[in-house]
Amino acid sequence: MTQPKILAFDVFGTVVDWHAPIAREVQALLPEADGLAFASAWRAGYQPAMAEVRSGQRGWTRIDDLHRLILDRILIEFKLTLSETEKQHLNLAWHRLDPWPDTVEGLSRLKSMLPIVTLSNGNLGLLANMARHAGLPWDLILSAEVFSHYKPDPETYLGVADVFAVLPGDVMMVATHEDDLDAAQACGLQTAYVARPTEYGPGVIKPVGDLSRFTLHATDLLDLAQQLAVMQQAT
Amino acid sequence: MTQPKILAFDVFGTVVDWHAPIAREVQALLPEADGLAFASAWRAGYQPAMAEVRSGQRGWTRIDDLHRLILDRILIEFKLTLSETEKQHLNLAWHRLDPWPDTVEGLSRLKSMLPIVTLSNGNLGLLANMARHAGLPWDLILSAEVFSHYKPDPETYLGVADVFAVLPGDVMMVATHEDDLDAAQACGLQTAYVARPTEYGPGVIKPVGDLSRFTLHATDLLDLAQQLAVMQQAT
Repeated sequence: MTQPKILAFDVFGTVVDWHAPIAREVQALLPEADGLAFASAWRAGYQPAMAEVRSGQRGWTRIDDLHRLILDRILIEFKLTLSETEKQHLNLAWHRLDPWPDTVEGLSRLKSMLPIVTLSNGNLGLLANMARHAGLPWDLILSAEVFSHYKPDPETYLGVADVFAVLPGDVMMVATHEDDLDAAQACGLQTAYVARPTEYGPGVIKPVGDLSRFTLHATDLLDLAQQLAVMQQAT
Repeated sequence: MTQPKILAFDVFGTVVDWHAPIAREVQALLPEADGLAFASAWRAGYQPAMAEVRSGQRGWTRIDDLHRLILDRILIEFKLTLSETEKQHLNLAWHRLDPWPDTVEGLSRLKSMLPIVTLSNGNLGLLANMARHAGLPWDLILSAEVFSHYKPDPETYLGVADVFAVLPGDVMMVATHEDDLDAAQACGLQTAYVARPTEYGPGVIKPVGDLSRFTLHATDLLDLAQQLAVMQQAT
């Protein structure tokens, strides 16, 4: 492998924990609800909603608006009631997700080596608010919103290389989701898998395939920084 | 006036000095050239080149590519010769501009109060590289490239409000160029004029009109932070 020039990060699950913070906010507003199950159901609606946009069935729609469509549906499914103001507040819980314990220090170390950018399906406003909330030191926030395409459409991965006028192979995609990395790899990007075993909540086993197909795999972002530092010294 | 929710910054001239750094890089490569005059000529080509894009005469073209078109032309006008590698290097001098002395501390203070974003005609890669070079702590880098429109097209100013799902009047545009602020004001944004009297180089007087039409005027970004802090305490 060659030293990458740009690191592009998936955000939900890879950089921040979504399950525990969403469950906590649901529970705070709705003490009678199963916050953990609600968080899982909300997130489960995400891929099908984006698939409608990717297929052209639905016009370009931001994640904030997709989150709201899913929220309205699962409130009914869970037989829960919120006021309009509460719904708006809860919908923005996705702007207030918490970093994993290694995230801020890991990103800071990585940033001292090379540019760190997001490549997330989250919208720009969401990602900017989250970066302020969680102290994420991005060099650049790139989003599906910039490319009007959701991952795993190739326009997103190739878009990162295009923005920095580098080759796809100069970009390393960092994610805890194998399908994201497979799509990046198909576009010629380098790939780093980051283990986030508790992404789906306590006691939920996250299936992991053969990780040897990716350029690197790391236990967390500190480990990734360490691996890239060793490579940089070797070259 | 009401307290703004988002501060959007013009970059070239307002946040970074372009004249002295460009002149310096030209002089380093071409000791026989008049670096100051070359920098002025390069920048003078910028508005006409963007006007071609804005009118539809030229398809969407990034500033990096417009800068190169202008560079190729003025090298001929100035009867100067560079290799292709030197041209590519010099063209990226716009990624390596220096902050004004108050910029980094001023932006840091403003960022502690509310989100700070760019709204620049510079492309995303350029602005990200510049932020790394100059230590600019943006919450979000927004560019004409995101909106496929150059300032002063309304899509850019209204685009900032749209990204954050706020009203145009919740955004304050910060710039040292009156035409930029006039266009922002016409879209309903608040406006802050920042004096940068030496933007066009030593001894070149920058004409200044009636600044009372803008929401605020500030001597520099520290002064702007001070004025906004006083307002915040009063409310």
